[in-house]
Amino acid sequence: MTALNTFDPDIRRVAHLMADAARAVILPYFRSTSLLTDNKLAGGYDPVTEADRAAERAMRTILDTERPADAILGEEYGNKDGTSGLTWVLDPIDGTRGFVSGTPTWGVLIAVSDDAGPFYGIIDQPYIGERFEGAPDGARLTSPHGSHDLKTRAARILSEAIVFTTFPEVGTPKDAVAFQAVSAQAKLTRYGMDCYAYALVAAGQIDLVIEAQLQPYDVHAPIAVIHAAGGIVTDWQGGPAHHGGRVIAAANATIHAEALAILKDH
Amino acid sequence: MTALNTFDPDIRRVAHLMADAARAVILPYFRSTSLLTDNKLAGGYDPVTEADRAAERAMRTILDTERPADAILGEEYGNKDGTSGLTWVLDPIDGTRGFVSGTPTWGVLIAVSDDAGPFYGIIDQPYIGERFEGAPDGARLTSPHGSHDLKTRAARILSEAIVFTTFPEVGTPKDAVAFQAVSAQAKLTRYGMDCYAYALVAAGQIDLVIEAQLQPYDVHAPIAVIHAAGGIVTDWQGGPAHHGGRVIAAANATIHAEALAILKDH
Repeated sequence: MTALNTFDPDIRRVAHLMADAARAVILPYFRSTSLLTDNKLAGGYDPVTEADRAAERAMRTILDTERPADAILGEEYGNKDGTSGLTWVLDPIDGTRGFVSGTPTWGVLIAVSDDAGPFYGIIDQPYIGERFEGAPDGARLTSPHGSHDLKTRAARILSEAIVFTTFPEVGTPKDAVAFQAVSAQAKLTRYGMDCYAYALVAAGQIDLVIEAQLQPYDVHAPIAVIHAAGGIVTDWQGGPAHHGGRVIAAANATIHAEALAILKDH
Repeated sequence: MTALNTFDPDIRRVAHLMADAARAVILPYFRSTSLLTDNKLAGGYDPVTEADRAAERAMRTILDTERPADAILGEEYGNKDGTSGLTWVLDPIDGTRGFVSGTPTWGVLIAVSDDAGPFYGIIDQPYIGERFEGAPDGARLTSPHGSHDLKTRAARILSEAIVFTTFPEVGTPKDAVAFQAVSAQAKLTRYGMDCYAYALVAAGQIDLVIEAQLQPYDVHAPIAVIHAAGGIVTDWQGGPAHHGGRVIAAANATIHAEALAILKDH
């Protein structure tokens, strides 16, 4: 983890340029299906795929100019090697099924990672206009309603906690059983939020997100944002989460330990 | 159903006054738990209940002044008799579990109904700033991104359709089995959107919302908005939906008939 005193503010500057560019590219595609003829759709035009690719190209173009020595790992266009030891990890539209359904729960994910994992991240929701940012110097939300620091919830027991996952199936049948064992003890379980659920952990609104079958680019930015807000993200064994797979994001060490003890049993 | 040539534009004026007032009252409470001390919460302070009641009081105050002859049915403060034959049906915060989780999926529901059911409705999402309106002269979305007419999706078969419900449990175990029979044939099933899912039907983004155990005030505004956008809302037998209970909202008659045939079998 990059220490505060070595955090390069140029990373923040470039990340916001990229998030701004992705917003501008993606928003015209969001809910555009309702404006299209069926002929156009039948011809193989897929707005979410077009938006995904165009946004990643826009972000890579900025990196090529502004940060040419950094590596890139992107969902749509793969790896680009670098020489700086830093990697930008990009998911231009996380939550494509939410996107095609018109729900404002998808997000643009941008992270910067070193060998230890992600240390800077943005979860951006362009339609609402919310940008959740986590950095070594803290976590912050900027939205049309203003700007404020982010802090995860205080510790409470699982029976008082709010748990999210995107699909009730979670992953494999075994993954679902493990999730349900946690969910059964929680106060409230909710679904359908895609990457927005991780932002809600950082924002102090919910206690846990538990998911499986994630890709590295799904989770790098959430890790950085939640860590910066005071939370914890690991895999279901308590190890590093940035390789993807089974991930648990928790508001604090207490609820993390209680949920992890249940997941480990499965 | 009130015909277009008898639609009183004063209803629209007052409904927007009420929706504006509810926004102003509710927004300071949304996500306010992250700003509160645990002491305040332990003392029994419940932001969503406070916001719910304060918003309904604000809307009733406007009706007392602007539309004193109309009846009111509100979630929090019950019935007020009227003499005009019109009833305002109010749910100041539909989706309280979404509200307490910080998701922008709850809404302020305002409807005007006569003996035949609701003919005017607003689904307002104050945090995003979206207002979905349905009236005898059409359906419209106003948002920070602009304003445009609403139209439900064109007909497609269930295997190409997107289906929403808020909780996988749906209602009783029998309700859940019926929902799953539809869901199993759909292209995509999503959860967790509260009243926002009905707005997505009106906006032409999704094909079906299927829910159970609804109250009349949960469904009056969605019925008016979806009807005005070209969709259909009934109970699971194809009868009127405005009494609540088991409700199916559909983008068009074709998908409505296909899903209803499955629900009726259960």
